[in-house]
Amino acid sequence: MKQFINVDDVPDLPQLIEKALNVKRTPFAFKEFGRNKTIGLVFFNPSLRTRLSSQKAAFNLGASTWVFNINQDSWKIEMDDGTVMENSQEHIKDAIAVMSLYCDILAVRTFPNLLERDYDYKELLFNKIKHYSKVPIVSLESAILHPLQSLADVMTIEELRPAKERIKIVLSWAPHVKALPHSVPNSFAQWASKLQGADLVITHPEGYALDERFSRGACIIHDQDEAFKGADFIYAKNWSSFIDYGKLLCHDMDWMISRKKMALTDRAKFMHCLPVRRNVVVEDAVLDGEEAVVLQQAENRVFAVQTVFMEILKNMV
Amino acid sequence: MKQFINVDDVPDLPQLIEKALNVKRTPFAFKEFGRNKTIGLVFFNPSLRTRLSSQKAAFNLGASTWVFNINQDSWKIEMDDGTVMENSQEHIKDAIAVMSLYCDILAVRTFPNLLERDYDYKELLFNKIKHYSKVPIVSLESAILHPLQSLADVMTIEELRPAKERIKIVLSWAPHVKALPHSVPNSFAQWASKLQGADLVITHPEGYALDERFSRGACIIHDQDEAFKGADFIYAKNWSSFIDYGKLLCHDMDWMISRKKMALTDRAKFMHCLPVRRNVVVEDAVLDGEEAVVLQQAENRVFAVQTVFMEILKNMV
Amino acid sequence: MKQFINVDDVPDLPQLIEKALNVKRTPFAFKEFGRNKTIGLVFFNPSLRTRLSSQKAAFNLGASTWVFNINQDSWKIEMDDGTVMENSQEHIKDAIAVMSLYCDILAVRTFPNLLERDYDYKELLFNKIKHYSKVPIVSLESAILHPLQSLADVMTIEELRPAKERIKIVLSWAPHVKALPHSVPNSFAQWASKLQGADLVITHPEGYALDERFSRGACIIHDQDEAFKGADFIYAKNWSSFIDYGKLLCHDMDWMISRKKMALTDRAKFMHCLPVRRNVVVEDAVLDGEEAVVLQQAENRVFAVQTVFMEILKNMV
Repeated sequence: MKQFINVDDVPDLPQLIEKALNVKRTPFAFKEFGRNKTIGLVFFNPSLRTRLSSQKAAFNLGASTWVFNINQDSWKIEMDDGTVMENSQEHIKDAIAVMSLYCDILAVRTFPNLLERDYDYKELLFNKIKHYSKVPIVSLESAILHPLQSLADVMTIEELRPAKERIKIVLSWAPHVKALPHSVPNSFAQWASKLQGADLVITHPEGYALDERFSRGACIIHDQDEAFKGADFIYAKNWSSFIDYGKLLCHDMDWMISRKKMALTDRAKFMHCLPVRRNVVVEDAVLDGEEAVVLQQAENRVFAVQTVFMEILKNMV
Repeated sequence: MKQFINVDDVPDLPQLIEKALNVKRTPFAFKEFGRNKTIGLVFFNPSLRTRLSSQKAAFNLGASTWVFNINQDSWKIEMDDGTVMENSQEHIKDAIAVMSLYCDILAVRTFPNLLERDYDYKELLFNKIKHYSKVPIVSLESAILHPLQSLADVMTIEELRPAKERIKIVLSWAPHVKALPHSVPNSFAQWASKLQGADLVITHPEGYALDERFSRGACIIHDQDEAFKGADFIYAKNWSSFIDYGKLLCHDMDWMISRKKMALTDRAKFMHCLPVRRNVVVEDAVLDGEEAVVLQQAENRVFAVQTVFMEILKNMV
Repeated sequence: MKQFINVDDVPDLPQLIEKALNVKRTPFAFKEFGRNKTIGLVFFNPSLRTRLSSQKAAFNLGASTWVFNINQDSWKIEMDDGTVMENSQEHIKDAIAVMSLYCDILAVRTFPNLLERDYDYKELLFNKIKHYSKVPIVSLESAILHPLQSLADVMTIEELRPAKERIKIVLSWAPHVKALPHSVPNSFAQWASKLQGADLVITHPEGYALDERFSRGACIIHDQDEAFKGADFIYAKNWSSFIDYGKLLCHDMDWMISRKKMALTDRAKFMHCLPVRRNVVVEDAVLDGEEAVVLQQAENRVFAVQTVFMEILKNMV
């Protein structure tokens, strides 16, 4: 693997999942890959799960890490080319190039602005980062994708897959008080639809259709109750509108995932990437119940990113 | 040792002190305990001594660390159960559970609010943390206790103990401009009163009695000069009122520890946990004099926490 | 080497450069020096290059690091002696002494206030740090010097030195919108003038003469075009006035380093310590051209500081 930004960077998804599950069994057995290696972790926004799971993964490999919070640790970064930099202190091209000299993998998290769809969906910032880095890039989440979350998610699904010929996975929109990015649902739709023996259903209110590039292949149902019937996995997530870009259109709390809704499924597992607003996105009763596997997802974040680091470091030994 | 939150978690105090003094002699001799281990350090408030001494201790053991500053690094944490989380982004139960998946020991520092005695003295926050963590907890200070400071303090006393049958240790209240927590005096009273061949005296103005659970066994004297007579160790610390909870009642600068006061003792050593406001709590002349052993206490913080980490990690090998 | 604060701490400059270039060739060959060692990194201001290159250097040596951002991570530090500390929480003498107990080398970055020349040029803060530390000090930049940058710079010059009997190095003032410190030009002047077979020219507008202690031995020319003629290296940097202390006197954008100016040189390499304001200090065309070696300088920061750490750690093994 040369980089990890998109599911297309993964040559063989079932094999990657298998490798990640193997890493989970023996996390300390791969130190030859991390020896003398440093992984730089750069965040354009604060992070809990992503930073700590990436640090743990690096430690498992015997690699070192440094963490850099852009905007918090540093000066104002210039994003545009050709500017007379009277109001910014360092250009993104110089900052990224320099940081990449101090590590073997540059793992970066960016966010959408949710204002201009084109700016976000062309991944302008992430593409600049990729362009200016001297070392391989790992996405810790970009404006529109979160592939490491998805790798942890599909690992979790494979671990818990019931003994059925085909399983039904439902990605359900859920209510929220703020406009949220599309990265988790986009990536989940993309990755889950590549799983073998699985059918993906996406359910959301009108106006919340995801970009077809990602939802292609999934069955779209606007009736949440209907969608939940017979489901094996419910993946809950809020997202803002793609069509009416970045807007909050629906405030219907009936979309919250409740015990009653879960009863419509075939004893489905409840999934969410966390952090989650309790009793807004999902009822306490569901999240604290046995059907919730959110901590297993969170734990798998370590092995997902460790596997990705390993696959990239392999080419450097 | 299963956890380290309270002196009651220590099965044998003299033995623990001896182990810590041994760790100080050969700090790098115990790497088998830290191998492949990660210690998560979580702070609800900024920290210098506690963070750096804990990181150094982990490094001495060959263990990795990550640091997480709640509130600074992350979003708003919800503390109450059952809330509809419209104004907070992650529940403490989920944040703690997730963080605990990314380490082998979760070391946490919290603080009192000094507003509601019950909230603080029931250790509600710390008990939640303990409840939701999947791995052993080490207190880096809680609302009402600071056992790692006390372990470093009693190590220091044992190192410097004069050749007498019984020694006299005085915990003295000292002036300050702000209302401070009770954790250091509570723990010191508790730990020092368990030392063999030692008499503990606590001296403070009226209204500053500590919770009897911690001061029990000590002799309480309100006349500071009287208390200092014949003392071998003066442990100075300000604290706010326990009875009139969190209040600053006394502004009498005569309680400041001065050369003149120290002259009343039997050439006592001067102790303080740092940071200290010079010429408010204690005169420069004392702190810069030979009797001050505050740096020895600070150095012992490393070996105290290293020993605690080792005792807990021992059970995991 | 006992400490690294000033070029005078270097017993043999050509030998140090040679060692650093050797470290660059085999960065992981010196782990015996870093074993069981911890390097404390203390910043009075934010840092990108300096922090990350120092962490990478420590990792190359197998040493651990902790990072402490004074003012951001901690409470208000008292700088003056004898104060009744009603408005500050910890004295610099206690903070530095304690931090130095938790590491084997204390690497510190401070900044000038650019208000009182005497305060800055007497290095009052740095001298206090040196005085109170229990372990060797490495300057990551002080009020008036930046020797690690200079070591990386002279390494870069030696790597790229053209095959001439004598080379011409030009330190050129360049425009900026803010008053900047003198540390980089002071140190560069000092180090470059010690290079063998090299002539140093400094060019700047009237009123921008550096302190003669540092510019001594260099040829000063106020006509930038004249200075550039035949140059092999152009080192661009803004600085505020030394004479009219901390003031911005010249706003003439003709001092910006441009393609046209570079054409006056003997195909000189363009150097800058970064971060740089593009199209203020230097044109995009120069910085993005082949003559720019700023990333090589940035990369050499790792090997410069690694070599300094090694030279100091050698005495401790």
